[in-house]
Amino acid sequence: MNNYGKCFISWRNDSGILWNEYVKHLFVEQLANGDLSSSAFLKYLTQDYLFLLNFSRAWALGVTKSETIDEMRTCAATVHSLVNEEIQLHIALCADAGILESDLKSAKEETANLAYTRYVLDAGHSGDLLDLLAALAPCVLGYGEIGLRLQSNHHSSRYENWIQTYGGKDYQEVCVRVGQLIDNAVARRLGNDPVLCPRWIKLTERFCQATRLEIGFWEMGLSP
Amino acid sequence: MNNYGKCFISWRNDSGILWNEYVKHLFVEQLANGDLSSSAFLKYLTQDYLFLLNFSRAWALGVTKSETIDEMRTCAATVHSLVNEEIQLHIALCADAGILESDLKSAKEETANLAYTRYVLDAGHSGDLLDLLAALAPCVLGYGEIGLRLQSNHHSSRYENWIQTYGGKDYQEVCVRVGQLIDNAVARRLGNDPVLCPRWIKLTERFCQATRLEIGFWEMGLSP
Amino acid sequence: MNNYGKCFISWRNDSGILWNEYVKHLFVEQLANGDLSSSAFLKYLTQDYLFLLNFSRAWALGVTKSETIDEMRTCAATVHSLVNEEIQLHIALCADAGILESDLKSAKEETANLAYTRYVLDAGHSGDLLDLLAALAPCVLGYGEIGLRLQSNHHSSRYENWIQTYGGKDYQEVCVRVGQLIDNAVARRLGNDPVLCPRWIKLTERFCQATRLEIGFWEMGLSP
Amino acid sequence: MNNYGKCFISWRNDSGILWNEYVKHLFVEQLANGDLSSSAFLKYLTQDYLFLLNFSRAWALGVTKSETIDEMRTCAATVHSLVNEEIQLHIALCADAGILESDLKSAKEETANLAYTRYVLDAGHSGDLLDLLAALAPCVLGYGEIGLRLQSNHHSSRYENWIQTYGGKDYQEVCVRVGQLIDNAVARRLGNDPVLCPRWIKLTERFCQATRLEIGFWEMGLSP
Repeated sequence: MNNYGKCFISWRNDSGILWNEYVKHLFVEQLANGDLSSSAFLKYLTQDYLFLLNFSRAWALGVTKSETIDEMRTCAATVHSLVNEEIQLHIALCADAGILESDLKSAKEETANLAYTRYVLDAGHSGDLLDLLAALAPCVLGYGEIGLRLQSNHHSSRYENWIQTYGGKDYQEVCVRVGQLIDNAVARRLGNDPVLCPRWIKLTERFCQATRLEIGFWEMGLSP
Repeated sequence: MNNYGKCFISWRNDSGILWNEYVKHLFVEQLANGDLSSSAFLKYLTQDYLFLLNFSRAWALGVTKSETIDEMRTCAATVHSLVNEEIQLHIALCADAGILESDLKSAKEETANLAYTRYVLDAGHSGDLLDLLAALAPCVLGYGEIGLRLQSNHHSSRYENWIQTYGGKDYQEVCVRVGQLIDNAVARRLGNDPVLCPRWIKLTERFCQATRLEIGFWEMGLSP
Repeated sequence: MNNYGKCFISWRNDSGILWNEYVKHLFVEQLANGDLSSSAFLKYLTQDYLFLLNFSRAWALGVTKSETIDEMRTCAATVHSLVNEEIQLHIALCADAGILESDLKSAKEETANLAYTRYVLDAGHSGDLLDLLAALAPCVLGYGEIGLRLQSNHHSSRYENWIQTYGGKDYQEVCVRVGQLIDNAVARRLGNDPVLCPRWIKLTERFCQATRLEIGFWEMGLSP
Repeated sequence: MNNYGKCFISWRNDSGILWNEYVKHLFVEQLANGDLSSSAFLKYLTQDYLFLLNFSRAWALGVTKSETIDEMRTCAATVHSLVNEEIQLHIALCADAGILESDLKSAKEETANLAYTRYVLDAGHSGDLLDLLAALAPCVLGYGEIGLRLQSNHHSSRYENWIQTYGGKDYQEVCVRVGQLIDNAVARRLGNDPVLCPRWIKLTERFCQATRLEIGFWEMGLSP
């Protein structure tokens, strides 16, 4: 079992079958066994480039909504690694596949993509840091969980690069750090038994909605 | 021709075929000739109720981004008429069709709906009042244009109520007022020849993106 | 005792001597006994005009951070009454005193004024609706408390108009409605015993900080 | 003459005597000649620690309001250097002077401080990236200008450390980078002759208002 924190475990459990629909989606299984078509992977990569730009904006919003310097530092470090490392990696992966950075920038954003990132940003603007973190969690931690599982359990080297990125040590450390940020931010605001607070239900809903939007993102990748 | 202002005419022209795909969408034609199925109409009404809640939030965001008391008053008046009149009308129309207000509140928000309203809110948060207004315009003014056209040109009384709402004097006055708000806000910030300013292209893109999301909203209504 | 709700009573008690330093400030006592100089009153009125513009923006921000249609409606109604009634009243009072609306618009915003409204707006942007409401409460409800006290206890008719505005039935109803909004919004998010939640301390701090900034506002009025 | 970009030169010129009142303030002259009292310096340092936390939040807001990945990267890099380097330096300087980090965190924020940072944050929330940058510029670039001047022209080594920080190569590079960000962001949105755009006046006003608040910050440092 991963060690991404107590809140994540609780939200993940409460999301019921949704979670498995996301982390064991056909798209993921095809990444593992190498059956995913190149066109589906490239469509995904291109949309994910646009996704990461807006996801970075959401993490930066987290800095503006932090109450402690530690919260600020973790959010800022995540923005930094997204903007300078993960996006760069996407540009490189796409270049390998013959997609120029200029193509990425001018790609049309799909509705499933737009819905997801703007939902996360709105969670932050309409609520506090916890609303934002609950909406950010499924992507960050779900990819960590998928990466970890696939690393020890894939039957093709076709998408090795992707699997190593999210299953690798660096990304796993990001997940642990983000999980701690969430647990600490929740404890600071709602105490040590946050499930007793009415807000907990709302946070769980945010987590579930973002998980649904993750499923929609995989669907988009597979759609023609 | 309507009198919703100079900026609207420019954005509408520049959106090319997109605009007609929106205002003459099959959903609209079926509203006019009475062919629209009850289930499609109710699905639309239910989603539109959720839409209006978030659309009201976007107009309220406009108050926070206003530079003059006149801008504040027009945005605030629009929030007021949305929250107290238009939403009330939806509740009444839905009640006629057997949908309770509690059903409306617990309805699941479709992705096309979520993508649209959160895009508009993000336009406001990431840009200034003009970015927000350009994203708000297609809904407000497009419904005005559709209402006006259908009022003098529909072949069935089945959706008379909807048509009279948007073709009626009150809503048309809202459109004129919003058109003036846009023209004045643009002139105040970009001068009398705003098309010469690089920002104009971005504003037109915002208008086009929101128009695309309107088309997606009609599609959602027709989908099973 | 007023009936502005349970949360207000708790925050007011916890603010200690700060509350009386605000509602029984020398400026207030001089309003009651007629000793306040015309120049101090006009300085106050002019700054308060600018204050109300930004305070309206903060209430509009509340609409964008609401979770229910009732929350939206109360926030929107408050924006409406501020933008269309209270500001109008300031313009009329200033006109009586020979200050034109154009003078009001071009008046230089004092630091104490700027600090206060921008603090409230930032409370909203960095937190959730509760953070915003805790920062809005001292102004709305403190003026209600002052108005009510002075109405039955003033020794001069010089500032009768001001006293009747805030002690009068309409404004008192606003206070009751805002008090209910706060109690309901808190119960919805933190439950029926919100003082047990760590967030309560933060909310009380917000209330105290806004009360300090109210004191600074009176000081500004009295300063030469 | 510094090379902090064209926009800065224009705003600086248009701010008239305000600019010199800021960069040649008595506080600055006392830093240069070593006459500044320890208590004034420590008061300043303590408040500046709180300032930097909120200033970092404002730069993070810039990431959320960026339109290009280059804009995002420069804003994110500035957050990073503020949160991890400049704040750390303040903690170290304060420790040298016997002020613990826990004292810094619990220090009461002065009104002049609060007014300044919340004004900058509100500039960002109510406007677009340009409004935010115009409000951020006086602090970043003014400190650069002061540091550069004092480095070659100070008559005491008492505040050497402070002078070397802002006059040093690293900070000067930040200033050049921020100046370029501003010039590029302005050209992208308002074209190559931005002074012709009505928005220019508003941006200049933002720059002047932030400069006034800088003067207020020095005053606070000198006040008992």
